[in-house]
Amino acid sequence: METNHQQKKVEIFDSTLRDGAQAEGIAFSVEDKLRIIEALDQIGVDYIEAGNPGSNPKDMEFFARAAAMDLQHARLVAFGSTRHKNIKPEEDKNLAAILSAGTKAAAIFGKCWDLHVLQILGTTLEENLRMIEESCAFLQAAGREVIFDAEHFFDGYKHNPSYAMEALGAAVQGGAACLALCDTNGGCFPHEISEIVKVVCETFPGVRVGIHCHNDIGCAVADSVAAVLAGAVQVQGTYLGFGERCGNANLSTLIPDLQLKLGYTCIPEENMHMLTSAALRVAEIANTSVKRNEPYVGRSAFAHKAGMHADGVLKCSQSFEHINPEVVGNERRFLMSEMTGRTAVLRKIHRVAPNLRRDAPETFAIINELKRLEQVGYQFEGADGSFELLVRRQLGLFKSSFHLVSYKVLDELPYDESHSATATIKVRVGDRLQISAAEGDGPVNALDTALREALCVFYPCLHKVRLIDYKVRVMEPKDATAATVRVLITSTDGDEVWSTVGVSSDVIEASWFALVDSIEYRLRNESHPDALEAAQ
Amino acid sequence: METNHQQKKVEIFDSTLRDGAQAEGIAFSVEDKLRIIEALDQIGVDYIEAGNPGSNPKDMEFFARAAAMDLQHARLVAFGSTRHKNIKPEEDKNLAAILSAGTKAAAIFGKCWDLHVLQILGTTLEENLRMIEESCAFLQAAGREVIFDAEHFFDGYKHNPSYAMEALGAAVQGGAACLALCDTNGGCFPHEISEIVKVVCETFPGVRVGIHCHNDIGCAVADSVAAVLAGAVQVQGTYLGFGERCGNANLSTLIPDLQLKLGYTCIPEENMHMLTSAALRVAEIANTSVKRNEPYVGRSAFAHKAGMHADGVLKCSQSFEHINPEVVGNERRFLMSEMTGRTAVLRKIHRVAPNLRRDAPETFAIINELKRLEQVGYQFEGADGSFELLVRRQLGLFKSSFHLVSYKVLDELPYDESHSATATIKVRVGDRLQISAAEGDGPVNALDTALREALCVFYPCLHKVRLIDYKVRVMEPKDATAATVRVLITSTDGDEVWSTVGVSSDVIEASWFALVDSIEYRLRNESHPDALEAAQ
Repeated sequence: METNHQQKKVEIFDSTLRDGAQAEGIAFSVEDKLRIIEALDQIGVDYIEAGNPGSNPKDMEFFARAAAMDLQHARLVAFGSTRHKNIKPEEDKNLAAILSAGTKAAAIFGKCWDLHVLQILGTTLEENLRMIEESCAFLQAAGREVIFDAEHFFDGYKHNPSYAMEALGAAVQGGAACLALCDTNGGCFPHEISEIVKVVCETFPGVRVGIHCHNDIGCAVADSVAAVLAGAVQVQGTYLGFGERCGNANLSTLIPDLQLKLGYTCIPEENMHMLTSAALRVAEIANTSVKRNEPYVGRSAFAHKAGMHADGVLKCSQSFEHINPEVVGNERRFLMSEMTGRTAVLRKIHRVAPNLRRDAPETFAIINELKRLEQVGYQFEGADGSFELLVRRQLGLFKSSFHLVSYKVLDELPYDESHSATATIKVRVGDRLQISAAEGDGPVNALDTALREALCVFYPCLHKVRLIDYKVRVMEPKDATAATVRVLITSTDGDEVWSTVGVSSDVIEASWFALVDSIEYRLRNESHPDALEAAQ
Repeated sequence: METNHQQKKVEIFDSTLRDGAQAEGIAFSVEDKLRIIEALDQIGVDYIEAGNPGSNPKDMEFFARAAAMDLQHARLVAFGSTRHKNIKPEEDKNLAAILSAGTKAAAIFGKCWDLHVLQILGTTLEENLRMIEESCAFLQAAGREVIFDAEHFFDGYKHNPSYAMEALGAAVQGGAACLALCDTNGGCFPHEISEIVKVVCETFPGVRVGIHCHNDIGCAVADSVAAVLAGAVQVQGTYLGFGERCGNANLSTLIPDLQLKLGYTCIPEENMHMLTSAALRVAEIANTSVKRNEPYVGRSAFAHKAGMHADGVLKCSQSFEHINPEVVGNERRFLMSEMTGRTAVLRKIHRVAPNLRRDAPETFAIINELKRLEQVGYQFEGADGSFELLVRRQLGLFKSSFHLVSYKVLDELPYDESHSATATIKVRVGDRLQISAAEGDGPVNALDTALREALCVFYPCLHKVRLIDYKVRVMEPKDATAATVRVLITSTDGDEVWSTVGVSSDVIEASWFALVDSIEYRLRNESHPDALEAAQ
């Protein structure tokens, strides 16, 4: 309905490095921060709030290095607060630190909720207004673009609207270029945000209004959209929604929401396809992962599991997709499950055997094998590698790269040195036998190491393969320690990433099956005899 | 602003078991589903959509068992679609399956978007209306409360409002008790939802209107709230937001949003404090974890990291918290601060040692040990047995029932007979040594059997103890097979049920720790010397 804002610019203000760093479990090194700036500048955000130089001395080194970066789009912002009570701005260390960061823009927060002024700050309502005005004026006089973060603006407005508005007025008086209205506690709904933003925009027609939301009631994205529709021209958030408590408004959702669905311009159109890879990069640097079901950029965001959905998308993608996944650099996936229809399975089969027909006997054979394996506990939706091998086996397109003669894994307590487990393994490749042994942190790790050692002799390319994810799922937990377990392994050789699955009532055996598939998948296109000759 | 809906009831319709099961990575066993129903009924949701009997034969067994449950609040719902085109309802297998599920309510989805009718269903607009009306009438005549899931209602309305409304009219004509408007593709914003729901409520004044949203643009919660404010009286969602692609509206957020912040009644007031524990329970059963920053129920939801925030909260909790965390059974945490959750821990300690004071040195010792263990991966949320042992150990109230001298577990492939694993174990009780050996379906099962065999000699009461649940969670999956794993075991002796936890990078060792705690917990009040004498 709302689609006619073409060309209307909304500034994107990213605070991953400042508010994002206040999330539990997030800690950035200077190096991390520089890499995140690079990623954000590449997609074309307008502002990057890079740190709080007054509260974190490490940030000073960082700002010095950041200043040397050649940014294409983004303006760096140093963050801090209004001056302390009862001193002059030029005596305030925090404001001095902001200036010494040397950024073109500065964001300072000030109190807008009378309760905070009186109870937390412990000063008078009048002094707080002076603190706001003088701090803005001080930074502005020093040549900074001043963004005033109106802390607790919405809660303040609900309790004492006239004081909250006076606080904004003081910032404007002091020369603030932008009033960023903060829902600091994250408890406001879109209809509230909308109403209050409208009032602010009407009261200060010449000033840019921004919005800064937190997700404590699950509405940060919708709140930000509501603010933009009500007149805000700057959206503050963090790239994956990192932030204190429940996090900040997620810019990887908001940018496509505003740009693709509501017709605003946030970042250059040609960068939209970088949103998904930027998410992976930021998550990687933050040592976390992108939530699987993250809107737009998550791995499941365009994954279809229900058979009817998969069928529908194949007939007409619009039927179960609100946008084309490629626009944001993501991809459509069809998951294998009991609920998945034949069409989706066929589509996956076609990646391996493009000409296999829907009614061919091989198609039925594959589907029957799939069902049989699912009944004993296999699941292929997260295991594309094993699925491809299954198809190849059924079509006679698979030749195994090695045969297991035997393995033995010993696990003991107490243990001598550093490892509790030892594995020995004997494999046959062609007519050569190879035996190897390894220790490990646990039985599967030992077995994994021994297997690689044995096979690298024949297949040197396996040196580059490593496991990057290992998951265990107990399927009928009521059988307790005799329950069937499913093991899912994700591997990479640096270029490709693939996942494989194994099932057994023995966790070591289940892991073994998944390990074997992982290696067979990597070697599926290798020429086996050559490899053998090379090894001989 | 919106706070005057006291007493206005909003029905909570949970689809964790149906739409939630369509999420990537989620697969429920029959046992899992029954336990989730129990958890949801306990918090007091109104409807539990339990499965799709027509598409999944496994669901029939489940519905038979679910019917035997004694639910206090919830009404079970069987899900399916309107009849196939060009047949009579009584000829439709899917509708027959819904009836044979034997639930009081039935939810059927029907097409409301003309594009879907023509391109996906491949029938005429008129036949689709007949399919809707006749299917509703058929189920209603069979005594079911019929909830019509108006699939793609909002997209349909945007493209062809009059046809979308005709589809609803057909459902009403057929006797549907509730029109659940679905944003199936998850691409609608709250302001759109609000506007359209208002029109529907005005057009069908006598019929209950429900809302069913997906999170593809990050707005599912706000969309649902907007619908309720516009007149919807039923909210459909899943308890942790599980669902196809980016998930469904998250009921663990929506229930407190509506009830605590907007004054609606969703569940009995006295159950609100169960929201957090229910989230942990559902996540555990689904073999996933509650997102750390999940609103209300996440572990970080009330965690304060910034010094100024922590200070503020201590002066006045309202300053940085939108609600009191205890209301939803969560707790305030100060990160990197010695005050972490002391009240909450103390509450737990008091179950074992009712008189221990908050500032006693033992309290600090317990909290420090807890923190140390949490840092290496322990979690005591689901392991009350281990927690009680920890407290007893710290207070000197624990005496171990046996000492491990050593165990050795051998796992091999191929294996001779039926078992892949053999364990030998040597334990000491008092000054007697006991050695035993056992085979098993996997290494942990073998070890478990050997340990019991050795100890039953001394403690005959252990004959009655059996493990009823066994779970493995890989904690840092990026370390692959060397990752730390957490094992959770639930045991019973027929009277009591208790859970214990173990952590190690070796899955066998982690299981061992949990096994030991399981047995020690059972024997905590046994008189050890007596047991020894009896055995001698």
